[in-house]
Amino acid sequence: MAKAITLLESTRPDHRAQADALLTGLLPRAGRSLRLGISGVPGVGKSTFIEALGLALLDQGHRVAVLAVDPSSSVSGGSILGDKTRMERLSMDPRAYIRPSPSSGTLGGVAEKTREAMLVCEAAGFDIVIVETVGVGQSETAVAGMTDMYCLLQLPNAGDDLQAIKKGVMELADLVVINKADLDDAAATRAQAQITSSLRLYGMHRRPAHDHRSPLGHAPGLAGVAGAGEAGSERGEHGEGAHRPFWEPRVMRMSALKGEGVDAFWRAVTEFQALQRANGAFEEKRQQQALAWMWERIQSGLKQQFKAAPAVRGALEDITARVLGGQLAASTAARELLAKFSGDRNPEDSKDQRHA
Amino acid sequence: MAKAITLLESTRPDHRAQADALLTGLLPRAGRSLRLGISGVPGVGKSTFIEALGLALLDQGHRVAVLAVDPSSSVSGGSILGDKTRMERLSMDPRAYIRPSPSSGTLGGVAEKTREAMLVCEAAGFDIVIVETVGVGQSETAVAGMTDMYCLLQLPNAGDDLQAIKKGVMELADLVVINKADLDDAAATRAQAQITSSLRLYGMHRRPAHDHRSPLGHAPGLAGVAGAGEAGSERGEHGEGAHRPFWEPRVMRMSALKGEGVDAFWRAVTEFQALQRANGAFEEKRQQQALAWMWERIQSGLKQQFKAAPAVRGALEDITARVLGGQLAASTAARELLAKFSGDRNPEDSKDQRHA
Repeated sequence: MAKAITLLESTRPDHRAQADALLTGLLPRAGRSLRLGISGVPGVGKSTFIEALGLALLDQGHRVAVLAVDPSSSVSGGSILGDKTRMERLSMDPRAYIRPSPSSGTLGGVAEKTREAMLVCEAAGFDIVIVETVGVGQSETAVAGMTDMYCLLQLPNAGDDLQAIKKGVMELADLVVINKADLDDAAATRAQAQITSSLRLYGMHRRPAHDHRSPLGHAPGLAGVAGAGEAGSERGEHGEGAHRPFWEPRVMRMSALKGEGVDAFWRAVTEFQALQRANGAFEEKRQQQALAWMWERIQSGLKQQFKAAPAVRGALEDITARVLGGQLAASTAARELLAKFSGDRNPEDSKDQRHA
Repeated sequence: MAKAITLLESTRPDHRAQADALLTGLLPRAGRSLRLGISGVPGVGKSTFIEALGLALLDQGHRVAVLAVDPSSSVSGGSILGDKTRMERLSMDPRAYIRPSPSSGTLGGVAEKTREAMLVCEAAGFDIVIVETVGVGQSETAVAGMTDMYCLLQLPNAGDDLQAIKKGVMELADLVVINKADLDDAAATRAQAQITSSLRLYGMHRRPAHDHRSPLGHAPGLAGVAGAGEAGSERGEHGEGAHRPFWEPRVMRMSALKGEGVDAFWRAVTEFQALQRANGAFEEKRQQQALAWMWERIQSGLKQQFKAAPAVRGALEDITARVLGGQLAASTAARELLAKFSGDRNPEDSKDQRHA
């Protein structure tokens, strides 16, 4: 399995072809796991939690894989390698598999490798895949976009500066866990209340018009219409949020070090999973994620091709400078560069267009 | 001016070339306005507010333009046309200019036209440009991405279903206004407290390491490092959030119908603007927005070229179906399609690569 993952992570073109053949071959046996995303800043107790959870799951007969998504391990303070050492019991158990983050550059590249490693783990019979991130850049969004359920670990001091919650991350969470709740009970209670209230405020778009849990029973109104429009938009291709709602995000307390709350966490996950499957949202989300991922990789590849095209390369710097200097409108600049790229593609067409 | 905007909105290729020449010509005289973004669901009292604000600003000697961004007027319930009728006094004043949303299809296209219309208004001497949206799809993000300051109007019933706040929108706000606060004083107070608390929770990434307003004086820690990394990332190209923080988002109460709170609103805007300029964030934000917009239009254009390329068009449907059916990994699918597109571009290169 490690060999397969190493092949997938290779950048050699001939390896890439083999890797694609391998992926296609193992795909029929992949997909049959619960994919659980877990984020939390360093110090939140993520590895302690994952080890406690993982060991409990092994006891229940599951096989557990833990993969990491962190584009720049230097930024994360080396905690990824540390994680593996710290998850000592879990990493030594043959029924578990732990793989640190691929070390290559961009988030898109790292996320791609992790997605592919996930498929390998599934084909190898792991029925629970935990994908974790310490939250560098947009990695939380990437993890939420490749998992069935996304959980965010928080410290009890929710009002403090150190509690870094980046834009939009909280709203991705299906479950927020206040870890180390035993350290400061009052702070944990405050954090729980504050986060619950925020999730309710921000999460309202998740409720469908026919949701019987809606406390006030309002008519769908314009909000519902706008939401429906959004699902089909270009920007809605992030593979998240378009499924029919079946779950209200929860905020739980935990002390992973003492083993308190880990069982309750797993019960919530199990409940989520059952509702998600009963509702049809499971299959829908997986399909949307796959499609979103395909388009995200296409966009990324197109940008690469664009930047590498000779006609663009020769003009990009100058045009960018003129946009920054206020001499060229951004939309005009985009059209000029696109015409150069398109002209590179089809010199004849482009000439015709100029004379039109 | 209306003629210029109509030219900019034309889709005829020869018009487009004239429009680009026009844009480039007027650019040196554009840019010298305050660009104010205002969002709010229908019923929040947006047009009453904009009329009250606009008339007050005319009295102070300003010239005010109001532009709208709403991709699908059918979804917005026709409120855009209604707005113009309802802003009766403002629309009849020769010192003001009100233009409803361009009616064309995608949000990207509508936003582009509005951005360009904004430049025309500025070159024509309007020193305050208000860009408004009723919040359809991702139009709030588009408006926040083209303005210097973004304000969100809310109703007092912040906890209710009708209060539709879509993901990430609240976090864009520099100022949240609880309008119609007189209708339910207790609810307005609750909403103000709740939104203030959420903004603080979600807005923490905005605080820089050296921000002396930081209440606890913490060291920057990993949060600061992660934030810095994000600013340079591909996804960070939305032109928002990378400037140095100088402002803590505020929540104000208002009753635009009674004219209460409109003065206080304008004082806050003036203060914001002074801080933003003193800090250097004004220029930085404008530049980032222009660059982000250029790349957003490039990405959109590349996707169009991609979808229109014969080799892609012939395979996209089948490959998409195989991804949805679980027979093809998303990343493999992306590579296959990109190779087809690239092969269309450079048939020889692509053949060579295949034999490598």
